[in-house]
Amino acid sequence: MTENGCEYHERVLTVDTMNPNIKRLEYAVRGPIVQRAVQIDKELKMGIKKPFTEVIKANIGDCHAMGQKPITFFRQVLALCSYPDLLEDNKFPEDAKSRAQRILKACGGGSLGAYSTSQGIEMIRQDVARYIERRDGGIACDPDNIYLSTGASDAIVTMLKLMVSGEGASRTGVMISIPQYPLYSAALAELGAVQINYYLDEDNCWSLDINELRRALQEAKKHCRPRALCIINPGNPTGQVQSRQCIEEVIRFAADENLFLMSDEVYQDNVYADGCKFHSFKKVLFEMGPQYSSKVELASFHSTSKCYMGECGFRGGYMEVVNLDPEVKVQLTKLVSVRLCPPVPGQALLDVVVNPPQPDEPSYDTFIKERSDTLAALAEKASMTQDILNQVPGIKCNPVQGAMYTFPRIHLPPKAILKAKENGQSPDMFYCMKLLEETGICLVPGSGFGQRDGTYHFRMTILPLKDKLKVVLAKIKDFHQIFTEQYS
Amino acid sequence: MTENGCEYHERVLTVDTMNPNIKRLEYAVRGPIVQRAVQIDKELKMGIKKPFTEVIKANIGDCHAMGQKPITFFRQVLALCSYPDLLEDNKFPEDAKSRAQRILKACGGGSLGAYSTSQGIEMIRQDVARYIERRDGGIACDPDNIYLSTGASDAIVTMLKLMVSGEGASRTGVMISIPQYPLYSAALAELGAVQINYYLDEDNCWSLDINELRRALQEAKKHCRPRALCIINPGNPTGQVQSRQCIEEVIRFAADENLFLMSDEVYQDNVYADGCKFHSFKKVLFEMGPQYSSKVELASFHSTSKCYMGECGFRGGYMEVVNLDPEVKVQLTKLVSVRLCPPVPGQALLDVVVNPPQPDEPSYDTFIKERSDTLAALAEKASMTQDILNQVPGIKCNPVQGAMYTFPRIHLPPKAILKAKENGQSPDMFYCMKLLEETGICLVPGSGFGQRDGTYHFRMTILPLKDKLKVVLAKIKDFHQIFTEQYS
Ligand SMILES: Cc1ncc(COP(=O)(O)O)c(C=O)c1O
Ligand SMILES: Cc1ncc(COP(=O)(O)O)c(C=O)c1O
Repeated sequence: MTENGCEYHERVLTVDTMNPNIKRLEYAVRGPIVQRAVQIDKELKMGIKKPFTEVIKANIGDCHAMGQKPITFFRQVLALCSYPDLLEDNKFPEDAKSRAQRILKACGGGSLGAYSTSQGIEMIRQDVARYIERRDGGIACDPDNIYLSTGASDAIVTMLKLMVSGEGASRTGVMISIPQYPLYSAALAELGAVQINYYLDEDNCWSLDINELRRALQEAKKHCRPRALCIINPGNPTGQVQSRQCIEEVIRFAADENLFLMSDEVYQDNVYADGCKFHSFKKVLFEMGPQYSSKVELASFHSTSKCYMGECGFRGGYMEVVNLDPEVKVQLTKLVSVRLCPPVPGQALLDVVVNPPQPDEPSYDTFIKERSDTLAALAEKASMTQDILNQVPGIKCNPVQGAMYTFPRIHLPPKAILKAKENGQSPDMFYCMKLLEETGICLVPGSGFGQRDGTYHFRMTILPLKDKLKVVLAKIKDFHQIFTEQYS
Repeated sequence: MTENGCEYHERVLTVDTMNPNIKRLEYAVRGPIVQRAVQIDKELKMGIKKPFTEVIKANIGDCHAMGQKPITFFRQVLALCSYPDLLEDNKFPEDAKSRAQRILKACGGGSLGAYSTSQGIEMIRQDVARYIERRDGGIACDPDNIYLSTGASDAIVTMLKLMVSGEGASRTGVMISIPQYPLYSAALAELGAVQINYYLDEDNCWSLDINELRRALQEAKKHCRPRALCIINPGNPTGQVQSRQCIEEVIRFAADENLFLMSDEVYQDNVYADGCKFHSFKKVLFEMGPQYSSKVELASFHSTSKCYMGECGFRGGYMEVVNLDPEVKVQLTKLVSVRLCPPVPGQALLDVVVNPPQPDEPSYDTFIKERSDTLAALAEKASMTQDILNQVPGIKCNPVQGAMYTFPRIHLPPKAILKAKENGQSPDMFYCMKLLEETGICLVPGSGFGQRDGTYHFRMTILPLKDKLKVVLAKIKDFHQIFTEQYS
């Protein structure tokens, strides 16, 4: 205790006495590199000279922050819901008004400011159910199986929380892909559950290999009780889109091995590559017939944060549960009630996402144009990213089939690895920090997502606007060449 | 496993295998009585005849749902932020426009749809800090000590989570008042921490008795490690407002006993009774001089859900930490980063709450009028509630000094207690269920908040509009008399 005035006194809450699980937890997407980026940004604003004039944050899937525009219709409805006096305003299209009126009618006291039921507004859950039915070719969806959430993050953590029990060798184990989105490892650390890694196959475009699942499970059974299998499709950070066949194999595996499936489908509209298509786990499960669809327990997650809308700040999302034990469902409903309800503006936004303008409505054309422009721009940037990065000797990049990221492998010379070790950094952190200091580009080191020992990666979003993305890619190219020379 | 098609198969996730802490957790404010109320409401809508025509929910502090109107200025700013094209609209007052522009400038990409930093938008944290300084007569507040949150609930659970460690007799114990707001007991159950009850003094207007704190602490030390003391002021469910002297005593107690203080001040503007005044723990702590203010660790909580704005659905809130160990602060910041950020519309709303129209601005007069009308109506309903309830033989109600609730003691005849036991219900649940079935009024039984053994209470909000509240009170009066006769 050396700091100001507190020498005489031992604090109640210190790193030694605090929750040890929290200490263990890591969250790379907002880790030290991002903190340094914020600092550099402040230094630039204070007039400190750098070899660049701005910090470019390609570290996080934050669409609007990178210049993507919101969908006009969605924002009109939100404005109308926020300030219903605007319903008198003839500047707003009729479909936006009727959507807003319908949402407000479903809110307590006709206000976004009332708590909703904890599971989410019933009418919105019905709209979500119909959206899922359309998406899945008519397979039934029960609104009672829908839980609205505070972003997908909230629902994912809630499901994991429900599942954690036991001690020692009977502690709950949860299988997650490596590389993974670090929410999973962080939540498992917080809950004191056992993280079971299965490695995606980098040589096969980061696809999921069922034999690797098997290996990971067998090994894990020695020291924990594996109970759930998490899938991210389309993949973060890999940008991979799973084939229908792969999903069937995963479902069979889950059924055989008695695993609860959690499928994170927040990028379900972000599919760019020819021949790739999004298949929901729910749909495939039901198409595999009743021996699977009556048995396999599944929770799948969606969010307003990604796809073409990219409305991260609203923290909207939902989860659908399938085959959840009715008694457990009661417990789940009780659990979510403690936090009262998900943000109601996020629920309202989710409602228009699942119930967008229809062909006979005035906002339809604009909506379709905005949506397709955004998705087309992302597709163009996906292929540009992989093309340019693959031109760099020492960088190898799988196709960006979907989502918003690339996770290229970088070859780092032994001297750089040595230097990093001297600094007490992982080699890819050393690389990314240097890139940040020299170019202002903020990426996340592969070690934050997990990677096979001895391999190095970074994750980069494809979100900067096209011209800026070109500059970013060119700078990375130059940096990588100079870095390689410097440490060879 | 009897239900549809699943006979042959043991589920992965059952009440026997799920997280046992979640099973233990209870949350009365949204418990069985509320579920029954929702059902009755549906039955009424289906045309089923009842001895009443509507369900009146006096079970939850949900202002807008009970007819309270939002503050115009706040909603104008939110609409402008949601759909910035409206900035061109000359229907909006200039101060609303400039607030919206300022907020949008602080958002990534100028959009509510971008993730913010996990601690909350820096500019808004600065505005919160200035608000706290004004409130506390100039005592300094560092924006770095402010964490924006998803309602106060989120921040409260986060702080508790940080604090839980140890096993058996060294497990973290947390002192909470009885009666309490059940978020606390639920969070402690979920985290597997030890709940230490201290009873508020019903005979002294539900005030906190320092000797009772001492008793509870001494007893708890035998089986856990007490580390935190939670205070709700103004009180939920008690409606009590703590005196400055009481707060000083609590702070001295926390300092002597090495307890981390958590003060839940979400009702800080809801003070009605003559002679009562809100004193923030932060202010009293600093006015007690450096031997306390440099030492006692404090987290205090505020929310957009209560006070005069009652914007529950936006899930806005903040916490201020004082004397938090810098290393723990790093851990806290890391922990909140896992959920990415609090809802940005809620952050925007919080910004206007802490930075409302100023006397020289066009919206000032309307704002002041709306705020004072709301608070005056609440004050009137507070005194009306206590007056009418105290006229009922067998109901005894302390003054509603603040917050939005009354927690009257009800005398239940022995036969009613017997009958409840036969039903496997707590006697006050039996009472409240009967009230609901016969009058449509939904209250929460005292057992959901905790009460001394052998005493019975209910919690009722003062939120129904005045005329409706009168009806509610009259119906409770009649019901109580008939109930008493019936079981005597
Ligand atoms: C795979 C994946 N799942 C979940 C999330 C959480 O998103 P949100 O909580 O904003 O819905 C993200 C965010 O980047 C993600 O990439
Ligand atoms: C004492 C107290 N604290 C905290 C909360 C949580 O409120 P919110 O999460 O909506 O800010 C409530 C809500 O009723 C409350 O009464």
